[in-house]
Amino acid sequence: MATRDMASWETAICKVISEGDTEEIIVRGHRMSDLIGKTSFADMMFLMLQGRLPSPPESRTLDALLVASIEHGIAPPSMIARCYASYGTSIQAAIGAGVTAFGDRMGGLGEQMARMMVERLAPHRAKGVPPDAILKQEADAIVADAAKRKDRVPGYGIPLHATDPRAPRVLDVARREGTYGVYCRFGMEIEAAIARARGGRPVPMNLDGVGAVIALDLGFDWRATRLFLITPRTVSFATHYLEEQAQDTTWRHLPASQITYIGKEDLG
Amino acid sequence: MATRDMASWETAICKVISEGDTEEIIVRGHRMSDLIGKTSFADMMFLMLQGRLPSPPESRTLDALLVASIEHGIAPPSMIARCYASYGTSIQAAIGAGVTAFGDRMGGLGEQMARMMVERLAPHRAKGVPPDAILKQEADAIVADAAKRKDRVPGYGIPLHATDPRAPRVLDVARREGTYGVYCRFGMEIEAAIARARGGRPVPMNLDGVGAVIALDLGFDWRATRLFLITPRTVSFATHYLEEQAQDTTWRHLPASQITYIGKEDLG
Amino acid sequence: MATRDMASWETAICKVISEGDTEEIIVRGHRMSDLIGKTSFADMMFLMLQGRLPSPPESRTLDALLVASIEHGIAPPSMIARCYASYGTSIQAAIGAGVTAFGDRMGGLGEQMARMMVERLAPHRAKGVPPDAILKQEADAIVADAAKRKDRVPGYGIPLHATDPRAPRVLDVARREGTYGVYCRFGMEIEAAIARARGGRPVPMNLDGVGAVIALDLGFDWRATRLFLITPRTVSFATHYLEEQAQDTTWRHLPASQITYIGKEDLG
Amino acid sequence: MATRDMASWETAICKVISEGDTEEIIVRGHRMSDLIGKTSFADMMFLMLQGRLPSPPESRTLDALLVASIEHGIAPPSMIARCYASYGTSIQAAIGAGVTAFGDRMGGLGEQMARMMVERLAPHRAKGVPPDAILKQEADAIVADAAKRKDRVPGYGIPLHATDPRAPRVLDVARREGTYGVYCRFGMEIEAAIARARGGRPVPMNLDGVGAVIALDLGFDWRATRLFLITPRTVSFATHYLEEQAQDTTWRHLPASQITYIGKEDLG
Repeated sequence: MATRDMASWETAICKVISEGDTEEIIVRGHRMSDLIGKTSFADMMFLMLQGRLPSPPESRTLDALLVASIEHGIAPPSMIARCYASYGTSIQAAIGAGVTAFGDRMGGLGEQMARMMVERLAPHRAKGVPPDAILKQEADAIVADAAKRKDRVPGYGIPLHATDPRAPRVLDVARREGTYGVYCRFGMEIEAAIARARGGRPVPMNLDGVGAVIALDLGFDWRATRLFLITPRTVSFATHYLEEQAQDTTWRHLPASQITYIGKEDLG
Repeated sequence: MATRDMASWETAICKVISEGDTEEIIVRGHRMSDLIGKTSFADMMFLMLQGRLPSPPESRTLDALLVASIEHGIAPPSMIARCYASYGTSIQAAIGAGVTAFGDRMGGLGEQMARMMVERLAPHRAKGVPPDAILKQEADAIVADAAKRKDRVPGYGIPLHATDPRAPRVLDVARREGTYGVYCRFGMEIEAAIARARGGRPVPMNLDGVGAVIALDLGFDWRATRLFLITPRTVSFATHYLEEQAQDTTWRHLPASQITYIGKEDLG
Repeated sequence: MATRDMASWETAICKVISEGDTEEIIVRGHRMSDLIGKTSFADMMFLMLQGRLPSPPESRTLDALLVASIEHGIAPPSMIARCYASYGTSIQAAIGAGVTAFGDRMGGLGEQMARMMVERLAPHRAKGVPPDAILKQEADAIVADAAKRKDRVPGYGIPLHATDPRAPRVLDVARREGTYGVYCRFGMEIEAAIARARGGRPVPMNLDGVGAVIALDLGFDWRATRLFLITPRTVSFATHYLEEQAQDTTWRHLPASQITYIGKEDLG
Repeated sequence: MATRDMASWETAICKVISEGDTEEIIVRGHRMSDLIGKTSFADMMFLMLQGRLPSPPESRTLDALLVASIEHGIAPPSMIARCYASYGTSIQAAIGAGVTAFGDRMGGLGEQMARMMVERLAPHRAKGVPPDAILKQEADAIVADAAKRKDRVPGYGIPLHATDPRAPRVLDVARREGTYGVYCRFGMEIEAAIARARGGRPVPMNLDGVGAVIALDLGFDWRATRLFLITPRTVSFATHYLEEQAQDTTWRHLPASQITYIGKEDLG
């Protein structure tokens, strides 16, 4: 049981200064009034989480990831945001419910992949950037482990779809910008190892997977992985919420024909 | 009661194509594979909500607004996100609870201001861009109405603070980028009208207010106003969540000394 | 702007005593150790909200309302709880999202009805229990007002259904228990006034409506009305969550055949 | 990947009948119109989750657990519900955020305990009700395992408090009602094993723990354990929400004096 005083808070993120005529917000050591107009949203996201402003290539790579993650049609969480609109709920509650719908299965697989990669490479990274042979060996071990657990490797394969156009495009940007590092390489080794284990049939890296490797190569903590899906998707939730609201549907529900009652009949 | 078939959904936002070897995501008529690597997050947010890509000045103005809104210290919703971290809750639930905390009072005042401005100017805008004299007249009417209701004009005044460095900086960017339009002008007329009504003592436009006028001048629907606070603030919630988690606080709570029981004593 | 010290909290609900060997929880002046084993859940809900234990007839009436409100099939919020289960989200997040889905349109109409009734009767109640003639007159006024606004009277009429077996049964219990008071009578006068305005065609009171009149006659604040739906429905959300989880559906979504894209085609 | 048709839903919980003049809601084979006025809330909660109505002793035991769990002062989740009230958020969002705050650390320990107990006893239960010797042996194994992991046994010990008056009272009710079964016995064996391992110093069973053993002995699935905290606590969240709203606090926040900035100073 922690003995910390729970009424005292410490933070290194932000300082709000309000003294006499001076009003300023310091974010990670930078004055907000200097940042506004000079930095992009991606720059600020990087600064908030890493404590330093990114280089232009890093910022452009992050933008590519955020753009790729922003929208995927009336997928489960945007369906929920639209239902909330239909029931007369507020836009913030709709976005909150869409965000919270990302669970360990949906939207959370990138985090599992990122964590697994970090833990696998930690001992090797202590000795420098791991060469391809090491990555290949660890990739094969990951695939073998998943097979033993009769599980899939998180970050590969698209439910319902054959391939995903987003993952290769984001990796292209990383290559172009010079931000394609050890985790991107490791991700491709795992893709190759999966294909080897399946007699050559590939299971391509998906958006969860590319989010993990790009974020890690940009220096983010694996614990932040879900944010690169959540933040852009709030724009999707709001857009779907507003479209549904404009359609004035009043009460989205399942028609009786889609529901089969398989319980006890009237015992009366 | 709507008679619409609630099992059929229509959307103009996104089309996910999955046919044979072709996999593509079309967002507002643009292929995702063309957008990734060419557009920024702010560009995509604009495209999602308005159906067209912004001009570079529009995009830079939106970036300025998103940057200004990203962080404000351990404010109420980030405190809640940190509490969630302390209780062992997931990052998505913490972000969802922070987002949903924005209510009509906190975070929602920009929407009220935007709606009020749109409704006030609608009859005049039918006849072209309203001149300053019209804006001044409507601004005085708004201030008089609020005084009659013994209410404040939403979007002005900073709780606990004298001024807010963010609002004037974002307005500067709008002026520089040529996106300073009729709603920015209207906002400044309201600020002037409030000062007149208070014998010259100013109540400066706050972040809620600047969010409203900038978003309206960029062409966004007033119903989307809260999003320009919610989306950037998800980055804040995540950053505070991760910091709290790293501090390993286990159980944020109110110490007994801060709570006074004013109810009935033991009736036993 | 309130000048209250926001770090000090006052409460009349509960006192947690922890002194030396004495550990006790006092709820509204009663020791928790005296309440456990002697009171029902409905008794405690009454005590929490009203500060006194109910009489047995009051408790049985509240039980009838809670029982009537507990389940309504795979309705919108239980569908959302089931989707959360399907996506691998936690039970508490699923219940939270189901609860938050109750908006002004769905689940909130009872509160609107309760507030309207309280405001209408306040001037009359100052002079004693209003006679039927007054209730009839106010009921006609309510129906006329709604007609003028081209709106429905909240609390009457069942979407998709002809009648609702629950409302008359709960009212029967109130009559049997002697808790059928001025708000139940007022509710029936409004039902009669609606029928008169429609040439005799009835629009029966629904579950929202009966929740409002029963809760008011039991002495609850109109602001608490939604709770009598929310608390029992948490049991529904959990039951649906667990059933869906046991069915192992993995990923509830809308099939492509239910979604029509009506937006711009590939602009190439 | 499941190949199930995600647009078809099956449920054994409830059937809503709406045919011609017949309107009825069947819950687990019982007509809602027969249940209203005859069953208590605890009866219905039991019926919903287990598919049968409880005996009166089972129902009274469940009531004791629900009563014990209803309130614990301005604890973390009720603090969050009060903050939501202070920010002008709706009652349903406040309850939803309080519910979702129960994470693996707070409110979730009962589920961990219940699961652990079920898994430990499963092989023995196949052979009949396990005798005390088996329970003692498994209890010692649980305590040893926790010690090896340098972890606590979930369900024992009260943060900040010495003992909890609620757990022994609920166990008394179970003994009185004859519902004190193998899981209650197992729970007490674990308490004894913990004390043995600590040289006789006891760590008493807490509310999480008693919720687990009572629910299991009543026949509930361990996956439902959190519900016996969540459902009653919604009443607490609403009561605190309404009290805070009546206090008109406007903007609960952390005073600057409680926050220490430990980050970089202005780099400007």
